[in-house]
Parts: sequence; C-alpha cells; structure tokens
Amino acid sequence: MDASDILVLGCPMRQVLDRVGDKWSVLVVAVLSKGGPRRFTELRDTIGGVTPKVLTQTLRGMERDGLLTRTVFAQVPPRVDYELTPLGWSLRAPLEAILEWAEKHITEVTTARDAHDATHSAGKAAF
Amino acid sequence: MDASDILVLGCPMRQVLDRVGDKWSVLVVAVLSKGGPRRFTELRDTIGGVTPKVLTQTLRGMERDGLLTRTVFAQVPPRVDYELTPLGWSLRAPLEAILEWAEKHITEVTTARDAHDATHSAGKAAF
Repeated sequence: MDASDILVLGCPMRQVLDRVGDKWSVLVVAVLSKGGPRRFTELRDTIGGVTPKVLTQTLRGMERDGLLTRTVFAQVPPRVDYELTPLGWSLRAPLEAILEWAEKHITEVTTARDAHDATHSAGKAAF
Repeated sequence: MDASDILVLGCPMRQVLDRVGDKWSVLVVAVLSKGGPRRFTELRDTIGGVTPKVLTQTLRGMERDGLLTRTVFAQVPPRVDYELTPLGWSLRAPLEAILEWAEKHITEVTTARDAHDATHSAGKAAF
C-alpha cells in the first residue's frame, strides 16, 4: 500500500479519504446505489441513527465533491431528489469491498472484542 | 450493494464500519502494512495531523477489534510495539481499493469542489 500521500496532512488524497471514509457517505452511497433517486426524507428514514443535521451536512459535502446531484422540483411542498453521479456510482465497487470484508470478518471482530473486554474489565474484577 | 444490515443502527456490521471507515484506522493500517511493527512515537510522527490522544484511542479500538497487537517490552524507557494481526493484514486489500479510487478520481473531486465553490460563493458575490 503506497501511503505516502495520505500521510501528509492537508494533501488532496487525505481530503478525499475524509469524504470516502466517512460512515454516513458510505451509507448514502449504499442507499442511492440500490435504486435511483431518493428524497431527503427517504434517506433519513432509511439510514438508521442519522440526524437531519448530519444527513444535510453529508449530502452537501457529497454534492460539493461531485458524488451526487441535488435536484429541486418546483412544486408544493417542494421536492428535492438526490441521485448519484457517475463519479458517485464508481465508488460502489471499492465500498463493496469494505462491506464484504466486514461481513466476512464480523465474527472475528466481535469475538476479539468480547475477549478483550473480558480481559480488561470483568476478568480483572473476578480474579 | 446489499446494504440492509448496515442501515440498522446498532447492528454489528455498522460497528465494524465505524472502525474500518475511520480515517485514522485506515492510516494506521497503511503505515503498519508497509513494514513491520512500529512504536507509538513512530506512528505519531508518520501520520500527519494526528494528536497523541486520537492516536491512542484509535490504537486501543483497533487492538480491541483484533486488528493489531500491542507488545510492551520491559526496558527503560518502556518500549511498546504495535503490529497488525492477520485480521488487520486482511484489511489491506479492501482499503487499497479505496485508496486507488481516491488516487484515480482525485482530479474529478477537486474539480467538482472548485466548480461548486465558485458557484456558491464567488459566483453569487460577483453577479
């Protein structure tokens, strides 16, 4: 892994990593890549645990980075659709690799967590 | 992309994503996968912009998740080495996919940012 660039604070690679590595961006790509444009409320209701404020910030950042488009329809009440750009779609494959890793190794991670917690808290209390 | 699991708040997949998607974890894996164990100070000096507090939290979380080992050598001053486990090494490939995406598309992202900023700030001021 050539990490030379991303290790430098303020380099563009690091800024891209900030966006791509952001959990909420990952989840927005996951939802939008499943089936066409979505409204704000649909995204909010689909992504468990996201607050409107954080979702708004995430969508603005992704729009600024060219990952999605925001289309406002002049109707009452106003309707706003969010849709992935081709650039946003291209993120799907690498993000899938991360999700596949998580799915494959989730048991190892949770087992490690349980073992670690047992050693560092309950274990100490019991012995 | 099957996003059904990660969209649920509190599901284990989401917790794994929190760790794997964390920028600092990505950078620690990048450094440790380049050449064997490293000391805390080496990691701190290599990863630009990380504070000791954040690095400590990141390393503890990664140790808890079974991604790295922390080895304390009984010497003066004490020496502590951090090293990827096989599980941590297995993260290298999917993270590389993300970094490759970032490298390939960085121009598109920065161009989109510049265009967006021109439209939303300077553009408005000028016209």
